[in-house]
Amino acid sequence: MKRIKIEIAYDGTNYCGWQHQPNKPTIEGICKVTIESVFKEKIKLIGASRTDSGVHALGNVAVFDTSSVIPVEKMRFAINQALPDDIRIETLEEVFAGFHPRGFESKKTYEYRIMSRRVSIPTRRLYTHFIHMQLDINRMKEAIKYLCGKQDFKGLSSKKTTVESTIRTIYKAEIVEENNEIVIKLEGDGFLYNMVRIIAGTLIEIGKGSYPPDMIKTIIENEDRELAGPTAPACGLTLVKIEY
Amino acid sequence: MKRIKIEIAYDGTNYCGWQHQPNKPTIEGICKVTIESVFKEKIKLIGASRTDSGVHALGNVAVFDTSSVIPVEKMRFAINQALPDDIRIETLEEVFAGFHPRGFESKKTYEYRIMSRRVSIPTRRLYTHFIHMQLDINRMKEAIKYLCGKQDFKGLSSKKTTVESTIRTIYKAEIVEENNEIVIKLEGDGFLYNMVRIIAGTLIEIGKGSYPPDMIKTIIENEDRELAGPTAPACGLTLVKIEY
Repeated sequence: MKRIKIEIAYDGTNYCGWQHQPNKPTIEGICKVTIESVFKEKIKLIGASRTDSGVHALGNVAVFDTSSVIPVEKMRFAINQALPDDIRIETLEEVFAGFHPRGFESKKTYEYRIMSRRVSIPTRRLYTHFIHMQLDINRMKEAIKYLCGKQDFKGLSSKKTTVESTIRTIYKAEIVEENNEIVIKLEGDGFLYNMVRIIAGTLIEIGKGSYPPDMIKTIIENEDRELAGPTAPACGLTLVKIEY
Repeated sequence: MKRIKIEIAYDGTNYCGWQHQPNKPTIEGICKVTIESVFKEKIKLIGASRTDSGVHALGNVAVFDTSSVIPVEKMRFAINQALPDDIRIETLEEVFAGFHPRGFESKKTYEYRIMSRRVSIPTRRLYTHFIHMQLDINRMKEAIKYLCGKQDFKGLSSKKTTVESTIRTIYKAEIVEENNEIVIKLEGDGFLYNMVRIIAGTLIEIGKGSYPPDMIKTIIENEDRELAGPTAPACGLTLVKIEY
């Protein structure tokens, strides 16, 4: 028996998120049945991040155990040939049997892309959040500094969060302009439910001028979701990578 | 009666090209019926470039005449509100009655995007041509120089070309790397049927090492389509802009 770790990239547009749901297209569901059909055995797929419906990934991580005789170096190609073209295994490797994608310390990198202009660019509509106004990027850059460090992010997560602790560490938080898009880049040891999208929604309000830049600090200190901006749409969000 | 010039951006993925065809979704067809429904009058839409099925645009140009009382500065918003989200009017202005998008000298800019890597990135699959191998970009850069100038491009156009003259001028031809994609950028006074895609297909063969870089010169001199590479897929092609 081998434990296989895969990095998976996907266009989340046509999927109801990562996690398997009966009778709905999910990344986990499609990957599981595809791997099973290629390997001709039942597998259990364990994902690192249960991305929401419509969220994209360049490198989500999952593991499965297999007794297949297919050589490890040929597995990626075999699975990719069978996957739909909006899901691809970017890397595949054998790992030690005890490796668990949620059980080890990791650094996760997310990007949230905003298209801030008068008219939407159709070829970018599926991968950015379109805002029909100019945002003040300098205000957003000032605000994002307050995210860094080990803090309680309860105020910036969904009230549906069920985890024991809402304390997380953000190692790096920056805003850059790439191809006329505003990109929020976040690296941390973990993110709470909807946390990146609520951060994006709050930074957008700050960019619009509705909130002062230090509103991020106020929300964190007060642990109050009500003070934060709306949850920004899923299409702007991409899980870039997870490093162990 | 006013003559209105529009610059149109679209994601060509779900359309059978620009030109109206009965019972098929086309950019021209959708734009025409949308403008007619907003303006409540029949219009004739004249496009500058009849892009092929699956080709994208950031700024194709079209004109139509209208006697609508909607103020010109409000027309773009009104039409965009009614268009599907994969088509957008980027700019709209009134022009003199004699303006014709194909009857005046213009400079057209096209981009052809190649994703050259081991595994396709799903979120870029609709806007690039994926090639499962490394291309030698230096060979491609050497080859592209032979395209510049006023030349007979018969050998680099489809045999279905029906135009009188196959002489065109390419003002600028370059290859750049952007976000790990190889981008072929061409500016010229006009391009023959399938010409950009045949140039891309030929440059890819040169990048693979199948043809020498000066093959472009040989094809042009011999006016022989058979010597050129295959027509590269439509999804990699974007009509960037048309300047008058």
